Amino acid sequence: MIQSELFFKDDDLHVDDINELYDAIVQEYERGDVGYYLLPESKEFEKIRAFCDGYNFEKKGIRNVAILGIGGSSLGTKAIEKLLSHIENRNDKKLLFFENVDPVEIAQNLEGLKLEETFFIMISKSGSTIETSSHLKYLLEHFKLTLQSEQFREHFCLITDEGSPLDKFGEEFGLYRFYLPQNVGGRFSVLSAVGLLPLHILGVDIEKLLLGAKMLKDSFFEKKEDNLCKKALYYAKNQQNMPINVLFSYTSQFKYFNDWYVQLWAESLGKINRDGIRVGLTPVGLIGSVDQHSFLQLIIEGANDKSVTMIKVKDMGIDLIIPDIKLPHLEKTNFINTHSFTALINAQCDATMQSVQEQGVAVDLIELDSLDEVSVGYMIFYYELLTSLTGHLLNVNTYDQPGVELGKVILKKKFEN
Amino acid sequence: MIQSELFFKDDDLHVDDINELYDAIVQEYERGDVGYYLLPESKEFEKIRAFCDGYNFEKKGIRNVAILGIGGSSLGTKAIEKLLSHIENRNDKKLLFFENVDPVEIAQNLEGLKLEETFFIMISKSGSTIETSSHLKYLLEHFKLTLQSEQFREHFCLITDEGSPLDKFGEEFGLYRFYLPQNVGGRFSVLSAVGLLPLHILGVDIEKLLLGAKMLKDSFFEKKEDNLCKKALYYAKNQQNMPINVLFSYTSQFKYFNDWYVQLWAESLGKINRDGIRVGLTPVGLIGSVDQHSFLQLIIEGANDKSVTMIKVKDMGIDLIIPDIKLPHLEKTNFINTHSFTALINAQCDATMQSVQEQGVAVDLIELDSLDEVSVGYMIFYYELLTSLTGHLLNVNTYDQPGVELGKVILKKKFEN
Repeated sequence: MIQSELFFKDDDLHVDDINELYDAIVQEYERGDVGYYLLPESKEFEKIRAFCDGYNFEKKGIRNVAILGIGGSSLGTKAIEKLLSHIENRNDKKLLFFENVDPVEIAQNLEGLKLEETFFIMISKSGSTIETSSHLKYLLEHFKLTLQSEQFREHFCLITDEGSPLDKFGEEFGLYRFYLPQNVGGRFSVLSAVGLLPLHILGVDIEKLLLGAKMLKDSFFEKKEDNLCKKALYYAKNQQNMPINVLFSYTSQFKYFNDWYVQLWAESLGKINRDGIRVGLTPVGLIGSVDQHSFLQLIIEGANDKSVTMIKVKDMGIDLIIPDIKLPHLEKTNFINTHSFTALINAQCDATMQSVQEQGVAVDLIELDSLDEVSVGYMIFYYELLTSLTGHLLNVNTYDQPGVELGKVILKKKFEN
Repeated sequence: MIQSELFFKDDDLHVDDINELYDAIVQEYERGDVGYYLLPESKEFEKIRAFCDGYNFEKKGIRNVAILGIGGSSLGTKAIEKLLSHIENRNDKKLLFFENVDPVEIAQNLEGLKLEETFFIMISKSGSTIETSSHLKYLLEHFKLTLQSEQFREHFCLITDEGSPLDKFGEEFGLYRFYLPQNVGGRFSVLSAVGLLPLHILGVDIEKLLLGAKMLKDSFFEKKEDNLCKKALYYAKNQQNMPINVLFSYTSQFKYFNDWYVQLWAESLGKINRDGIRVGLTPVGLIGSVDQHSFLQLIIEGANDKSVTMIKVKDMGIDLIIPDIKLPHLEKTNFINTHSFTALINAQCDATMQSVQEQGVAVDLIELDSLDEVSVGYMIFYYELLTSLTGHLLNVNTYDQPGVELGKVILKKKFEN
């Protein structure tokens, strides 16, 4: 289903290193304070399904699903929705995000948006996320909704920590709430209600998503995922001379998956570690073939300070043939006629990989047979595990984000003065 | 109109360094082999206006402008269109791109797209860009168009090098052609017909775009832009210990400008330089406040190997007020009530800047009074000049991209075997 191949070698790597790493993650898993490991087996999807069956989106005429959320509350859903935008069961509901506090974006989002046609999902651990609570206030006024109204209860639901201020707010006004599982941070939360609720409403088979994640989870904890460990070991060992990790995905469908990866990698690993050292690895997300015409030159001829992971999809679900039209004066392009666009983009992936390798750049390839719920669930869990492994080796707390708190304090002071 | 402030110091910097740098660029300009310097004064906009007046898009019922182009042929137009999506003169024509050879993206682009309502602009220096020529072939078949048809001439035009194979193709079938000015590479071409033609059709005042660029150009060649020189000197001097340059733009409207910057910076500077050394600086584009919840942690606590440029817009053209709604249990968010979203996002910019500076990160700020054609033209030229300056100091040919040729050769071989 998904093949992984490493094209870099590490002669110093011992089997013991791999086993130690497996054991460390097994320990972390068994300690129970890292919640995302448990999501593939969670039965939350049953609650989600029951809620949606009861709500009946079709009958109510809901055409839009709007997320009020930022960072970990939005990126994962956006990633999976785009990856699966082509699947048959994807219905025609529109997904939109109240994410940035940019007035132009908010105004553009609201253009023609009708309350009666829209289901809003507000996602915040505590409810104090300033972006998200400001959006809620603005929407209340924009749609002339009172907190006590039936319409508010009908068109808004919440995803939050159990017992949080937002949970209490929802309780007071009778809003339906889903809870974030314990010990699951925002950027690891896409396989909880945070992602599953909106994706289910859009028609995605969320059980299959979880199944894909579980396949990799089981395989990893059976110690059959040496390549994952080798990658983490290689990245951690080379963090000084190779501080940049490029994800080069050969289909536009990975656009937001790249963004999700950037958050996961940057926010998890960029830390003052337990030895007091500033560590971290810089993620870069690229899309092929587009970014062959952008960033590739820097990889090929710039400083050799980057690793590159190529992602390739054998069957994209849709394929189109380049017709056998010979354009006068443009005969040089005839070689591609009668081939498919999938064949072209995948050959571009291979050609780029080869030319990058020839420059001595550390490359690995992840090859997906197809792009469906199972393979997407697998990819999500793959990157979450890779992050946990690398975080362990960098000796950081992979799951917190202490550095961003200061900005929030400064912000508040600016308005209180 | 636009203020620039540097918050990093360079005690070793001499006035002579700045003057030498001005002189080097003046020489490059006067040598005449770098074409983009001349674009602000070009009269191409007159030809574009005449063509559009003659074509009469309104009367013909054109609702979509579709670009066939990739890299430098698409990124600049996308950047400016998004930056100016809110302006009053922006009409309701839709802009779309046939860019990646991703079959899913192509199929989604074509959904409901009608030939009669669409004006296609194919952009390629020679016509041999494999992505773009494949799109043309596919569209010809999809719309059942013959090369000889009136409809083809009516709905397609070309932007290419004068005398190129694509120019000859266009001549043979009577297509309207615009030419790329001499010595202007793709990534420096947005102020030529490449950007000006589609943007004019969309209602953007292209003369004002050029005016903004010319304002900075004149100021620079009058040697009044020391901050630009200082930034380039600082980046070049610190290329080893600070190889990553983050552009942190505080409005979603800069999303594709960031992508345009990434191409410009990566492809221009990532080179084997004239001393045979692999050099280059890695660009990262971020959007505030969204990426405070993503990449910021890495800047704050990760390795101090990044410079950060903050972009702030005082007046975004649209503003919205956060209403004075006190949400029970969420009283902690009351401090923002009655303030505007613009005030919030700009305070977030300030707060982030302060917290990043406290970590000793090299920061500078670009502050725009407003987001309009003039300021956007200025910003485009600002980054083009900064790239030329830095490229000179890194001792590279800023304007070529030799590293990506090998991949094209390998690709062709894959299909010829």
